[in-house]
Amino acid sequence: MSEALRVAVAGLGTVGAETVRLLAKRREVIASHAGRPVDVVAVSARSRGKDRGLDLSGIDWADDPLSLATRDDVDVVCELIGGSDGVAKTLVETAMAAGKSVVTANKALLAHHGSDLARKAEAGGVTLAYEAAVAGGIPIIRALREGLVVNEVSRVYGILNGTCNYILTAMRESGRAFDDVLAEAQELGYAEADPTFDVDGIDAAHKLALLSALAFGHAVDFKAVHTEGIRSISALDIAYAEEFGYRIKLLGIAERTPEGIRQRVHPCMVAKAAPIAQVEGVFNAVMAEGDAVGTTLHYGRGAGAGPTASAVIGDVVDIASGRGAPVFGVPAERLSTSREAPWESMRGGYYVRLMVIDRPGVLADVTAIMRDQNVSMESMVQRGRDPHEKVPVALTTHEVDEASMRKALADIAKLDAVQEPPAMIRIVDL
Amino acid sequence: MSEALRVAVAGLGTVGAETVRLLAKRREVIASHAGRPVDVVAVSARSRGKDRGLDLSGIDWADDPLSLATRDDVDVVCELIGGSDGVAKTLVETAMAAGKSVVTANKALLAHHGSDLARKAEAGGVTLAYEAAVAGGIPIIRALREGLVVNEVSRVYGILNGTCNYILTAMRESGRAFDDVLAEAQELGYAEADPTFDVDGIDAAHKLALLSALAFGHAVDFKAVHTEGIRSISALDIAYAEEFGYRIKLLGIAERTPEGIRQRVHPCMVAKAAPIAQVEGVFNAVMAEGDAVGTTLHYGRGAGAGPTASAVIGDVVDIASGRGAPVFGVPAERLSTSREAPWESMRGGYYVRLMVIDRPGVLADVTAIMRDQNVSMESMVQRGRDPHEKVPVALTTHEVDEASMRKALADIAKLDAVQEPPAMIRIVDL
Repeated sequence: MSEALRVAVAGLGTVGAETVRLLAKRREVIASHAGRPVDVVAVSARSRGKDRGLDLSGIDWADDPLSLATRDDVDVVCELIGGSDGVAKTLVETAMAAGKSVVTANKALLAHHGSDLARKAEAGGVTLAYEAAVAGGIPIIRALREGLVVNEVSRVYGILNGTCNYILTAMRESGRAFDDVLAEAQELGYAEADPTFDVDGIDAAHKLALLSALAFGHAVDFKAVHTEGIRSISALDIAYAEEFGYRIKLLGIAERTPEGIRQRVHPCMVAKAAPIAQVEGVFNAVMAEGDAVGTTLHYGRGAGAGPTASAVIGDVVDIASGRGAPVFGVPAERLSTSREAPWESMRGGYYVRLMVIDRPGVLADVTAIMRDQNVSMESMVQRGRDPHEKVPVALTTHEVDEASMRKALADIAKLDAVQEPPAMIRIVDL
Repeated sequence: MSEALRVAVAGLGTVGAETVRLLAKRREVIASHAGRPVDVVAVSARSRGKDRGLDLSGIDWADDPLSLATRDDVDVVCELIGGSDGVAKTLVETAMAAGKSVVTANKALLAHHGSDLARKAEAGGVTLAYEAAVAGGIPIIRALREGLVVNEVSRVYGILNGTCNYILTAMRESGRAFDDVLAEAQELGYAEADPTFDVDGIDAAHKLALLSALAFGHAVDFKAVHTEGIRSISALDIAYAEEFGYRIKLLGIAERTPEGIRQRVHPCMVAKAAPIAQVEGVFNAVMAEGDAVGTTLHYGRGAGAGPTASAVIGDVVDIASGRGAPVFGVPAERLSTSREAPWESMRGGYYVRLMVIDRPGVLADVTAIMRDQNVSMESMVQRGRDPHEKVPVALTTHEVDEASMRKALADIAKLDAVQEPPAMIRIVDL
């Protein structure tokens, strides 16, 4: 058996601690797979005194995580600090410049600096692995990068944020409002104290930017991801979705169109019978559609210490075994500049829900505006009657382009009888 | 860019032909991923004259597939002939002995000779890759072998045969009988003229033997797989399944028990809401349960030229890129001898359907037999009444061991009023 692979772990939050714990606990089976032992030789975290339930005897403690990047006794650095810049970025760059491979769970870092880091990994002759960055429990990076190589992928999409999916699932099951369910999710530890990254779709957009680059071979382009979150989803809309035969899911979708690649994260109405609609609670799922392979779905836990540490260690074992691949499947210089499909020309069905004064003529005004924008209605429901009071009206449209729909919504919003900004959710055919 | 990887393809059925076609069509993107061109230099098939719609110009034709194994101008042999012995086996062994890596879609070969072939691959210092052998459209081999390394897997199971799943789905949707649907599947090309390997569960058992070896690190042990097929499933039982809230699926299940590893392929009743119950038609799905990662599901097409060729080429690109792994994750000498869990002590719920003469006292006799074997009934349904004629009675039991259930069924079968051998389907809690 060859010499041990020497690993440094930067960041001992739940994922870092679980990584260290599992590398020790499963040392023997890991060595069998890797053909050599894998040893944690050094760790670094903010607070040395904190009790993490970890046995760190025989492992060096570094107060400065950056010192891990240049130690002679380290082969691989696991960056589990997080954040798109700052210490995490410096650590990764310094380690790679020093000839060390890096394993990271940091989607923000890769979404913002992926192509640059890929070039730096190649320059250093090292591996930069990040299976844990996207849906930890799902080996989707290796599936896209290695398993589907020969396929021309038409679309990759999925439920990429467990917090949002938990909230949407709980809202549907309980009929409660977003704020109420978010507060509960925070208590249960499924949502952060500051939930912005999750509920505003940013975390999902980070992950989608990576999946799109892998699927379509373009340079990571986080800015090109059109991103909307779930704060505006109401209990009313969830109830209407059920009535129309849909579920509301926050999806990340990257698709090849004749106009270029379109990347988007927003709430979607998907048919209840679609496989992705069955994915509930904190689970993630990623679907990829390839011309040779057809549709594939990968489902599992997206976050949490166990799934994420499992993915980190899978990457470490790849490195120990000498299995490497270019960061985004092909050398960085071969990544194309993605031609971004214009947002306005996107076509699809729409769900719209209005709060209108219940009086004659209102629906005639609404439908006239839609006709003027060539928006063709598929169905309309007005629940209850309450003359001269505010009542909800929900409708779905046939396929129309985003620009026309937005114009129609802007005009509808100006009607006197329309009491709140219209709610709009895109219907996605999966 | 390094020198080309030179590939020989033995067998030009639908999979072999699609492999050759895609390697040419996607030559450039494959070279980007592999870091070197991948060229087919030689092929072999039974009939040279057959029109496969393939451009074979510049590719050598070998009348004898075995000659591919020893050619100096070949680095990798793709064995797409099939069969557990004979030419396929000789070809694979000869190629590996000659220092060539092998990619195969041949589950029968690996199920019967996997451990021996793994040793031979190691002796030859070559890779033996077989992603295409199990659920071609699903990269489950690399997921289990590389992605879940650190996990202690408790169970791996799935729908491993698209033909059976197509038949069961069509039977449920149409209410038709097995023979009728099988004939249709044969016409549509979803079932072979001789359907034995598929409908008797043998193909699924081959695949399960490989998944079990990978998940639990034991030597492949096809003989240990308890195998039952779907020929005995009736339209009546499918209707009862719906009524009890179940779907009938042919599952392959490998699980770790306190008594050892249990491998089995048989029709199962699974709760309608279980993710695996949603997998319909020719699709395959594999679920793996690991202690770190939790439950993961992988879903896609299991067979067909495109998905299988996609998997073959993924393996070829791994070899071209220098990514290799031991055949079953760990060196062959480290594969344990699987301790086979005794079949009789397996516990679970059971569905039983009898055809009985509708007269007083019959159910009392049946329930008395079950009581004597400590089989506790959960529910019973007798549809319709037809005094002194044959009527169906369906029941489900609470958890009981297989031995007691079999004894009860044997005794029930002996009752005068019981007109046909009892139908029994195991209820599996997923």
